[in-house]
Amino acid sequence: MAPGGRIDTDIAERVKNLAAERYSDRIAGIEFHPQCFLSSGHFAGDDAARARAFVDMANDPSLDAVWFARGGYGACRIAEAVLPELTDAARRKVYLGYSDAGYLLAALYKHHIGRAAHGPMPVDISRTDGEVPVARALAYLAEGDARDMLEPTVSPSTGVVAFNMSTLSHLLGTPLQPDLSGHVLMLEEVSEYMYRIDRLLFHITSDPGVRRCAGIRLGRCSEIPENDRDFGQNADDLVRYWCEKAGIPYLGVADIGHDIQNKIVPFGRAATV
Amino acid sequence: MAPGGRIDTDIAERVKNLAAERYSDRIAGIEFHPQCFLSSGHFAGDDAARARAFVDMANDPSLDAVWFARGGYGACRIAEAVLPELTDAARRKVYLGYSDAGYLLAALYKHHIGRAAHGPMPVDISRTDGEVPVARALAYLAEGDARDMLEPTVSPSTGVVAFNMSTLSHLLGTPLQPDLSGHVLMLEEVSEYMYRIDRLLFHITSDPGVRRCAGIRLGRCSEIPENDRDFGQNADDLVRYWCEKAGIPYLGVADIGHDIQNKIVPFGRAATV
Repeated sequence: MAPGGRIDTDIAERVKNLAAERYSDRIAGIEFHPQCFLSSGHFAGDDAARARAFVDMANDPSLDAVWFARGGYGACRIAEAVLPELTDAARRKVYLGYSDAGYLLAALYKHHIGRAAHGPMPVDISRTDGEVPVARALAYLAEGDARDMLEPTVSPSTGVVAFNMSTLSHLLGTPLQPDLSGHVLMLEEVSEYMYRIDRLLFHITSDPGVRRCAGIRLGRCSEIPENDRDFGQNADDLVRYWCEKAGIPYLGVADIGHDIQNKIVPFGRAATV
Repeated sequence: MAPGGRIDTDIAERVKNLAAERYSDRIAGIEFHPQCFLSSGHFAGDDAARARAFVDMANDPSLDAVWFARGGYGACRIAEAVLPELTDAARRKVYLGYSDAGYLLAALYKHHIGRAAHGPMPVDISRTDGEVPVARALAYLAEGDARDMLEPTVSPSTGVVAFNMSTLSHLLGTPLQPDLSGHVLMLEEVSEYMYRIDRLLFHITSDPGVRRCAGIRLGRCSEIPENDRDFGQNADDLVRYWCEKAGIPYLGVADIGHDIQNKIVPFGRAATV
């Protein structure tokens, strides 16, 4: 289902074909909820339609996972409302997505509902070589935590979460914010000016809950628009600066981002590597 | 002084000339700190230079006010650091500005240092008819709280604050966040997509501190870029939606924004109207 923006039917077709070609032995079927193709202003259907699609799929005992079709914007509008609707079937599922879908991943992780994971979505098939990230997501859905698909620093010994910086910034202080104590926090961003990345890092690293994390890893910050004057520092400089100021260990890079390399980060501790 | 971006010297000249022409009887002089014209990447000098300029002016007993020259971005990088440096002279001053300068206004108001006020800055003189807002600011600096310059709903009976939405969102949860209990909160925005205004309002109205405010007033949201698909709702729709969801009274419009009409909002209660 699509918690934010809609997708076109050809994306669904391409993903289903890829799954049938490569994973028909391990994935019985992929169902795109018709809600994915709805349109209501900015969104893939209004808030009620998106919330209903999420709850219906999460509570369907015949499904093993809910795969978010696309980011865009809109998951924050439904995340709080869907939680009380979830049943035991929702607790036995994997939830996979990233970017705007992070609002739902945060809420699910906070409430220990199923297994939230940050990773590629069906819409990624529209990138050049977009079969690569989608096949990675399909492999994860088929096989669970296995070395090839996971972000390489993920381990069974330390909890981890991954977020788009804007998404995390906008959920700090809200009822969606999970407890990050002792977690490695991986961050990535796309299409934001460098001064905005700086401002996001100020906000994120100033949060008392974030300051209890075990450290920050920096994913890719891509498609950064040209500033009117050069910012003079890159994302790596900025995350080091803010981590030092906040007393948060900076742990190095993370292999995540809005691109085809985007690896999978299961929230919490990996079951296996 | 300029806590974020730099200004050109011609802005300083035009503002000084306007002050001399119209307010020479009531404003002895306006001094632009040389820091206003520095350039360090994105900023009007590096963090140390901007912090030093602010502290020097705030602590100068011969000055009555610190007027922020321009927004841009950068005040959040110095706001925490300057507070412990401030002396009694800083407590007897007015601090005037808006947009990115809101980080400093928030920090000063939180710590009851001087009189923070949201209003026009020297850089506004570069707008068409830019003498109008700058003259309003000068009149405020000369005369204090007086009906003509103030936002029309400001009163001595209720506390009030005013913020750019992005600025407020990024300071929620940080040590800069003031206690907004019982305050009317005025919000404005510029150059943000409607979906981002929606996302900001989700964040702002979900904050437990903001939920203790007496109500929200909506200033102008201007220069909203065209969305790839029409968002389907305007800023007024959105603020009503989020206020209702959060249980925050929506109180109507506020006469503030990134424009020449931008009225002055003294933080706290107005001394007179």
